Amino acid sequence: MMTNVEHIGIAVKSLAVSNDLFTRLLGCNPYKSEAVASEGVTTSFFKINQTKIELLEATNPDSPIAKFLEKKGEGIHHIAFEVADIYAEIERLKGEGFTPLNETPKRGADNKLVCFLHPKETNGVLVELCQEIKPS
Amino acid sequence: MMTNVEHIGIAVKSLAVSNDLFTRLLGCNPYKSEAVASEGVTTSFFKINQTKIELLEATNPDSPIAKFLEKKGEGIHHIAFEVADIYAEIERLKGEGFTPLNETPKRGADNKLVCFLHPKETNGVLVELCQEIKPS
Repeated sequence: MMTNVEHIGIAVKSLAVSNDLFTRLLGCNPYKSEAVASEGVTTSFFKINQTKIELLEATNPDSPIAKFLEKKGEGIHHIAFEVADIYAEIERLKGEGFTPLNETPKRGADNKLVCFLHPKETNGVLVELCQEIKPS
Repeated sequence: MMTNVEHIGIAVKSLAVSNDLFTRLLGCNPYKSEAVASEGVTTSFFKINQTKIELLEATNPDSPIAKFLEKKGEGIHHIAFEVADIYAEIERLKGEGFTPLNETPKRGADNKLVCFLHPKETNGVLVELCQEIKPS
């Protein structure tokens, strides 16, 4: 089961412009920025209580975010739910008839193991599962 | 400033179908359903930690949700942020250059006073402010 709305990902054209916009909107400053080369994005994080707002800017035209912006424009890209055990959760969801986009969790931004579900199976919502990577 | 991601609103074609889908996805049951006649919607709520997932089904073809589904299909419709004082927050946001869609908060689902910001000013994200109505 999902234990928290860990973050909401929002696709933006320009982090510089949108960092300023969300600072004024949310009434707080972004607390970190991080590049995820494997996904072709640079991210910026705001924290509202126990949920983060993650702004996503594409770093190259093949980035999933570049394609999303081209097709749909700026807006909400995904919802990420925290889970206690991502491997067990992937199995649970497969048992419920869902098809994870990656069967093995991969490394995402913010020190997380992540797995995505395709929006065609989840009411048009791109769903991310994430679990913090603990130091071993 | 925003104090919590109070809920995420998701437009769906059929509450019956999507209640089942989200029950399997989230691993928990919806805890209430509520009609909001003024908005032309029936809603269903799930709770994940301190954030709710609100499914929205249109009750008539003029409902904003019916129009959203026609234009964009099922998917995330809005993010609602909790605020401590919605009147003060509307003034703060106007001072930051935002244009509330309603200057006076109106009554929404789940015993809330609500106010919306147009997505054209907020990176394509329909933003709702909400404050719980306290018994007077």
